[in-house]
Amino acid sequence: MKNILIVGCGLIGSSILRAVSQKRLFKNIVVLEKSKKNISVLKKLKLKCKIISSLKDIPNSFDLIIFCTPMSQYSNVILKINKFVTNKTIVTDVGSTKEQSFKNVKKILKKNTTWIPSHPITGSEVSGPKFGNKDLFKNKWCVLIKEDRVDKYRLSKLRKFWQKIGSKVIFMNSKQHDIIFSITSHLPHLIAYNLVKTATDFEKQKKYNLVKFSAGGLRDFSRIAASNEIMWRDIFFNNRKNMTLAINLFIKNLKSFKNDINLKKNKQIIKKLTNTKKVRKKIIELKQDINKPDFGR
Amino acid sequence: MKNILIVGCGLIGSSILRAVSQKRLFKNIVVLEKSKKNISVLKKLKLKCKIISSLKDIPNSFDLIIFCTPMSQYSNVILKINKFVTNKTIVTDVGSTKEQSFKNVKKILKKNTTWIPSHPITGSEVSGPKFGNKDLFKNKWCVLIKEDRVDKYRLSKLRKFWQKIGSKVIFMNSKQHDIIFSITSHLPHLIAYNLVKTATDFEKQKKYNLVKFSAGGLRDFSRIAASNEIMWRDIFFNNRKNMTLAINLFIKNLKSFKNDINLKKNKQIIKKLTNTKKVRKKIIELKQDINKPDFGR
Repeated sequence: MKNILIVGCGLIGSSILRAVSQKRLFKNIVVLEKSKKNISVLKKLKLKCKIISSLKDIPNSFDLIIFCTPMSQYSNVILKINKFVTNKTIVTDVGSTKEQSFKNVKKILKKNTTWIPSHPITGSEVSGPKFGNKDLFKNKWCVLIKEDRVDKYRLSKLRKFWQKIGSKVIFMNSKQHDIIFSITSHLPHLIAYNLVKTATDFEKQKKYNLVKFSAGGLRDFSRIAASNEIMWRDIFFNNRKNMTLAINLFIKNLKSFKNDINLKKNKQIIKKLTNTKKVRKKIIELKQDINKPDFGR
Repeated sequence: MKNILIVGCGLIGSSILRAVSQKRLFKNIVVLEKSKKNISVLKKLKLKCKIISSLKDIPNSFDLIIFCTPMSQYSNVILKINKFVTNKTIVTDVGSTKEQSFKNVKKILKKNTTWIPSHPITGSEVSGPKFGNKDLFKNKWCVLIKEDRVDKYRLSKLRKFWQKIGSKVIFMNSKQHDIIFSITSHLPHLIAYNLVKTATDFEKQKKYNLVKFSAGGLRDFSRIAASNEIMWRDIFFNNRKNMTLAINLFIKNLKSFKNDINLKKNKQIIKKLTNTKKVRKKIIELKQDINKPDFGR
């Protein structure tokens, strides 16, 4: 692949930019970015790439186009990008939900164009190109969406692309993907937002200064709940069917915990509190976290 | 104060031991510890202290007795300790709830003994003396419980003790304390446990390997949910009245989030997701966390 177009250059887009530049994976790198602030950050990086703010300035066709904008912007961009797509182009994205966007994109993307969604499992609560990092994908999972009629040749090309910038690639269909991440990522984020909201409501009701004492637990949730609101709105809306199921299961379990606490059911609660430790052990074995204790920062 | 007795020498107890040893705050330091494993860790520290495993071996009376055992063990220890308490002794603890334990302790502690509870806001998901640290209290809040009829002279002595090992001291009554920490600490921990339980239930139902992908959010909760189960059972049971109120408010808010997601209420959800960022800002201003982005460990 010679030519790449990165559409939207925030945390993820700029990390891809940094990685492909450093590894010289493409002859031509073009970045489409509208935000003046982001463009100014990108220019300071002095990487060998062409930064454009409008599709009028597109110089050539592309082997790989990768969407790194919020998912709610895909439709707009695709409508404008269709004329630069050839039947050799692979179009992908890095969005966190797949079923809904797959349907939306298929409707408007030029016929016979290869659309294979990607989802690199990495990131942070911060956003914007200044936090980008060439090693962001290193040893992290990247899910590629493999539907029944996928073009296997291009799927393999896309897999190699992610592997070259450090990802461990795994295949799923979009339905599986959205179910799995509704639990491992989308629900945890919603819960963090909801916990911080609950603390704020409580503070208003009681007129206590709570936040001062957030080191005991609230602190960690507040970090997660500081993530980008546009990105997370899009995720919650796109994955609303699975989110509803996940929320319902969460509430059912929480009510059972409440009951155990109120009735001081010793056996039941100890069992619940002990079982979660086993999950932690598994997470560390699977290298999804390290075993270093956290005493706050 | 010349003589201190530390009852229970896990993470917190051994951190107090390390701090008072290093700063030479007492002439005699006695540690009451029953676990053979803990005693063997403590002996390796080679600190100037007497480690006893039974109250029969108590050598003298004490100016300060500090309970660092799980709260459910207080009653047992107090019954045995009453004969070593004089009317000059200050008895305190480091437990995370105060209203219930205040009532329990008052009933059985020798009359006219000064009981002033403490709660240092520090710790980790790990437990045991090997993780102790002399700087654990440095620049961290320590709540002292100031009820109406508190002995002000001894309250001031206890305040100075905590300040000497680095704490910033603040006074509350036990009712206020339990309300505040039900939201900033106890609810977040329960929510973390509940989230991990929900993920486990889901994994069983769907037979998917979820944990493998926990880097997207679940990971952070699993760390919190790896905390000591005896300690947290005691906290949840002791503070069950406030926990119930906190859980109810949390569920009410979560249902409202679910409704916004299902009906794609854009304005409402953006407002909710944006407001939580302000809390994060406040937490950083109040030095309860640092502003460094987290990309996983």
